[in-house]
Amino acid sequence: MAVTKILLDESEIPESWYNVVADMPNAPAPPLGPDGKPVNPQALSAIFPGPLIEQEVSSQRWIPIPEPVREIYRLWRPTPLYRARRLEQALGTPAKIYYKYEGGSPPGSHKPNTAVAQAYFNHLAGVRRLATETGAGQWGSALAMAGRMFGLEVSVYMVRVSYEQKPTRRSMMESWGARVIPSPSAETKAGLSVRERDPNSTGSLGIAISEAVEEAASRSDTNYSLGSVLNHVLLHQTVIGLEAKKQFAKVGDYPDVVVACCGGGSNFGGSAFPFFADKAAGRQVRLVAVEPESCPSLTRGHYAYDFGDSVGLTPLLLMYTLGHRFVPPPIHAGGLRYHGDAPLVCQLYHEGLIEAVAVPQRATFEAGLLFARTEGIIPAPETNHAIRVAIDEARACAKTGEPKTIFFNCSGHGHFDLTAYDRYLAGELEDAPYPEEAIRAALADLPKVASQPPG
Amino acid sequence: MAVTKILLDESEIPESWYNVVADMPNAPAPPLGPDGKPVNPQALSAIFPGPLIEQEVSSQRWIPIPEPVREIYRLWRPTPLYRARRLEQALGTPAKIYYKYEGGSPPGSHKPNTAVAQAYFNHLAGVRRLATETGAGQWGSALAMAGRMFGLEVSVYMVRVSYEQKPTRRSMMESWGARVIPSPSAETKAGLSVRERDPNSTGSLGIAISEAVEEAASRSDTNYSLGSVLNHVLLHQTVIGLEAKKQFAKVGDYPDVVVACCGGGSNFGGSAFPFFADKAAGRQVRLVAVEPESCPSLTRGHYAYDFGDSVGLTPLLLMYTLGHRFVPPPIHAGGLRYHGDAPLVCQLYHEGLIEAVAVPQRATFEAGLLFARTEGIIPAPETNHAIRVAIDEARACAKTGEPKTIFFNCSGHGHFDLTAYDRYLAGELEDAPYPEEAIRAALADLPKVASQPPG
Repeated sequence: MAVTKILLDESEIPESWYNVVADMPNAPAPPLGPDGKPVNPQALSAIFPGPLIEQEVSSQRWIPIPEPVREIYRLWRPTPLYRARRLEQALGTPAKIYYKYEGGSPPGSHKPNTAVAQAYFNHLAGVRRLATETGAGQWGSALAMAGRMFGLEVSVYMVRVSYEQKPTRRSMMESWGARVIPSPSAETKAGLSVRERDPNSTGSLGIAISEAVEEAASRSDTNYSLGSVLNHVLLHQTVIGLEAKKQFAKVGDYPDVVVACCGGGSNFGGSAFPFFADKAAGRQVRLVAVEPESCPSLTRGHYAYDFGDSVGLTPLLLMYTLGHRFVPPPIHAGGLRYHGDAPLVCQLYHEGLIEAVAVPQRATFEAGLLFARTEGIIPAPETNHAIRVAIDEARACAKTGEPKTIFFNCSGHGHFDLTAYDRYLAGELEDAPYPEEAIRAALADLPKVASQPPG
Repeated sequence: MAVTKILLDESEIPESWYNVVADMPNAPAPPLGPDGKPVNPQALSAIFPGPLIEQEVSSQRWIPIPEPVREIYRLWRPTPLYRARRLEQALGTPAKIYYKYEGGSPPGSHKPNTAVAQAYFNHLAGVRRLATETGAGQWGSALAMAGRMFGLEVSVYMVRVSYEQKPTRRSMMESWGARVIPSPSAETKAGLSVRERDPNSTGSLGIAISEAVEEAASRSDTNYSLGSVLNHVLLHQTVIGLEAKKQFAKVGDYPDVVVACCGGGSNFGGSAFPFFADKAAGRQVRLVAVEPESCPSLTRGHYAYDFGDSVGLTPLLLMYTLGHRFVPPPIHAGGLRYHGDAPLVCQLYHEGLIEAVAVPQRATFEAGLLFARTEGIIPAPETNHAIRVAIDEARACAKTGEPKTIFFNCSGHGHFDLTAYDRYLAGELEDAPYPEEAIRAALADLPKVASQPPG
């Protein structure tokens, strides 16, 4: 019988992460400080351990994965690569569709690939506590599990509205021993100042970031941890694409197009960058980042220096941004509601080396449901964005007769998102209109930087 | 590095199910009709397809797994076998602890192992629709997915109180296209009669079974499907133990003790029966079924003929029972709240060939939490029963110094049960007292059957 699932042995978990910087035609634009000058990496040492800062600025192609990290990866890695034969059949396409499945990890998404690495390097540096923020809870869950594996205490500032609406995510983090604090809290100056201004504040990711950074900066035993955007985070996620390449080699195939959803960029970078290495060496392969139409940073944003957070505390990053004050409509794919995108992803997009497409919410659920009903797995709403585009590519092949090989990353399961499916099935899910006014207003408020490229 | 995860290739998915009847010292006691005489298997053909009836009464050791079933199994099978090194370390035990993980299936439990087989054989027989019942939703989810894979419509009668309290489980079933009906419903005579007596009835598994059986019996295009108890259901689950044996062989190990939680018996049968084959051939291996102290059918029930459902519609089964009218306290391990147990499991227990132990609820969550914090996976409350006993066995080894090999089946993830963990962490979870009075009353109400063995 034809192969449906391509597995690797645990000894085939990659031994190094792939650093895309080594193959980029131009060096990454540096982050800038408030003075408009490049940030000295050592300035980050108050909240990040040395090895992660080194990874953040490294241009070395391969960064070894420490054995204790690979040991934890074994819990769910290598992840399977599937041939989606029943989906292909339903689409009547000559295309071959493959997907990698990251939803089998303990928290149910790709996030622990970097959480485990970050927890390990912090543990190695003698750090005892990690602070982070979480919106819907995917990232907080991953760091809660990873911290526990290396004996670190974890504080998660969870946006208050999610804390109240998603109690099971909080319970998951607490089951792994993390402390979950609804944000804005009374435990930080940042939180208190928000509460003074607005005692009923339901919080935001920007406020939660401020609280976590403040805790990390003010305690010598505590560091900060981020789930996307930064170079080292994308680096850790490359285990996804590296494994996929080994798996394609086993069946003698190779993708014509690689599709991944893109919020902060870690899922896209992790899935697509290892294929970029081949592209840089001359191989034909399209790399497609998929974002929500209601938060279209790559496809509608400005390429400009902007803050990474919404409050304006972080260094300035050169990225496609909708403006750091932009608040995306409340779509169910919470992990894709970010005003910017990873600088590495943005630079490759700016240079025309990768593609991006924005899709509306209902079409993503339609795609996710077809996937669930053919392949069995109910995907996370973020993942549905990639599935939408993979299906569109496969349908185009049905018209042209091209037997393309399409690969996408199924970044997580949707077991925590079933109320969203429920709303879709009940016909209650709306496509948020393109938030033109809000984006225009936020873009008018970009920080003034001397080295800002023309908008 | 030492092996942590033992994988099989998809070609190593078993090609046959193992039928324990072939190795039992005595033939299984037959089910009896209302007249006290053995039921003619053909009487079941109104609600089951021919091949499943044949499997139900077969004594053939190996039953081939049809290729289309293996094809769907590939979505999550073979499942990994893990060595729980971090748990061993936390316990300071010389024992080796292994667990198989069934929570990576699309619905998150072992249930689809039989759901897919049942859907296939019904599809093969030309059946267009399946009806079933579900309590918390694990079984209904598995059948919803399996039915969809073979183009069958699925009706799930869901106990009304769960339907209202667990909307995400309903959404999951609907995402796969199943119709979910709160029971008691207005769609069946059984449902209507209950509603007439009690318009505010919150339902029960017994009522839901009655409704599903009635729908199946009254429509020629519809069959009934059951998630545990029956011989053919346990048969399908033996892929768990069969894979585990191959995996142990790969690392040159073999369990001294096999532990599995036991409600209706399909998880225990599926995990332990393949090892029973070796035991019957003279090998030393202990097989331990774990049940809740609040629903202790094996350890405190009578070995007697009793109805399989709580209403008294099914044939009489010879089993350890607490009485079909017994309503267990509302523990979180909903899948273990069954008044009886699979007749095959009961007969082996009655003959002293397997062991059983009952454990209190809080101790199971304590064990599950230690497992989550060492191995990463947050288990289902049912699974926590097995983990409790595996940990107790390993702790005993720490005292005696014996390097035993302990194997348990991690039958599902706990992503839908996080409120239960929350209650445990908040100190709100109680141990239900042993329901002595309720059991005594229910046992006094066993059906009168001429061939009833001495109580």
